[in-house]
Amino acid sequence: MAHKQYPELIQALHDCAAECNHCFDACLQEEDVKMMVDCIRLNRECAEICASLEHALTRNSPFIAELAAVCAKICEACGDECTKHAEHHEHCKRCAEACRKCAEACRSIA
Amino acid sequence: MAHKQYPELIQALHDCAAECNHCFDACLQEEDVKMMVDCIRLNRECAEICASLEHALTRNSPFIAELAAVCAKICEACGDECTKHAEHHEHCKRCAEACRKCAEACRSIA
Amino acid sequence: MAHKQYPELIQALHDCAAECNHCFDACLQEEDVKMMVDCIRLNRECAEICASLEHALTRNSPFIAELAAVCAKICEACGDECTKHAEHHEHCKRCAEACRKCAEACRSIA
Amino acid sequence: MAHKQYPELIQALHDCAAECNHCFDACLQEEDVKMMVDCIRLNRECAEICASLEHALTRNSPFIAELAAVCAKICEACGDECTKHAEHHEHCKRCAEACRKCAEACRSIA
Repeated sequence: MAHKQYPELIQALHDCAAECNHCFDACLQEEDVKMMVDCIRLNRECAEICASLEHALTRNSPFIAELAAVCAKICEACGDECTKHAEHHEHCKRCAEACRKCAEACRSIA
Repeated sequence: MAHKQYPELIQALHDCAAECNHCFDACLQEEDVKMMVDCIRLNRECAEICASLEHALTRNSPFIAELAAVCAKICEACGDECTKHAEHHEHCKRCAEACRKCAEACRSIA
Repeated sequence: MAHKQYPELIQALHDCAAECNHCFDACLQEEDVKMMVDCIRLNRECAEICASLEHALTRNSPFIAELAAVCAKICEACGDECTKHAEHHEHCKRCAEACRKCAEACRSIA
Repeated sequence: MAHKQYPELIQALHDCAAECNHCFDACLQEEDVKMMVDCIRLNRECAEICASLEHALTRNSPFIAELAAVCAKICEACGDECTKHAEHHEHCKRCAEACRKCAEACRSIA
């Protein structure tokens, strides 16, 4: 079953969804929220696909390779955006790192 | 914005998710549930990706083409399985038809 | 089955989720995004519970009354926030109206 | 922020959603699937509310108490059903235990 085959991917997805949601929340509280609008949008996109794929894996979905390919792409986009703000915002730095790890884990099964 | 460009796709996704959820519920109530296990599994897969894509469209996600390609594939798989039972179960017949329309609509933007 | 009993609630949930997602997208594009942060946050909350309840209804979930009570509360909070911006932003005005209708529909079964 | 206040609840929700999804998958593969239909249905209900609440917590949602109250109730219902099959199916036994822990964790903040 998928969840026994991919424990590291499941952990990476879980961590990435959590960091994206933290970053979403923290960006909305930043003084310079105008600068963070792309980050806010991508945080939501990334949290949703990571959560979808994580649950697909745990229910042994037949479509994990296809979902992982999309997830890798969204994680990369979110990670790239967060990287732009990593110097000023610790939450973006952590999120960028989680996105990078998750994109890599997704590509390994896509 | 995506939701103004794709009203027909949004409707097709909404209808397909609803039919898949009805079919899931109805399959679980069938006497011959053993025959319906693939249908039950695919109904859930299909309802989830259709719902995800519908919401991605309405929030103007940058990733609708990628999600639509996956959605088309899952709709086809669910529609194929439902077609096997369409003669005996009205809910599978309706679901197969909704899946076929939705797969087609997804392919048009994938 | 729930989806035959509650067609109006399903429509209200669908409309509310869509308007909340449109409003989320539009708020992120506003010049005065700083003023819209509570709206952005509540739009996401409201879209997610409305989508969850809509799907629960279509799959004949045993927990619709409980979910509807929470959904009514979240719709009210989102509608109240959107109402503050309804004079300046058409998307907030439309969202506030969809939230009000949906909250009312939810309360009727909660 | 909620995710720093409630690390144990987040873990309990994550574990419960995963066990419910495993149990859903495993029940569909059981020879006596007819006996498992209530379990299959409740596994899906429980996985969805646990995932929703987990993500609400990580994005610092203002509605976690309300969602936790519903989640506790659904976890209890799923755990009760799984308990009936715990003697014969290891996946139900594990799921029942995860549901029990999660219901308790939810009640502590509801």
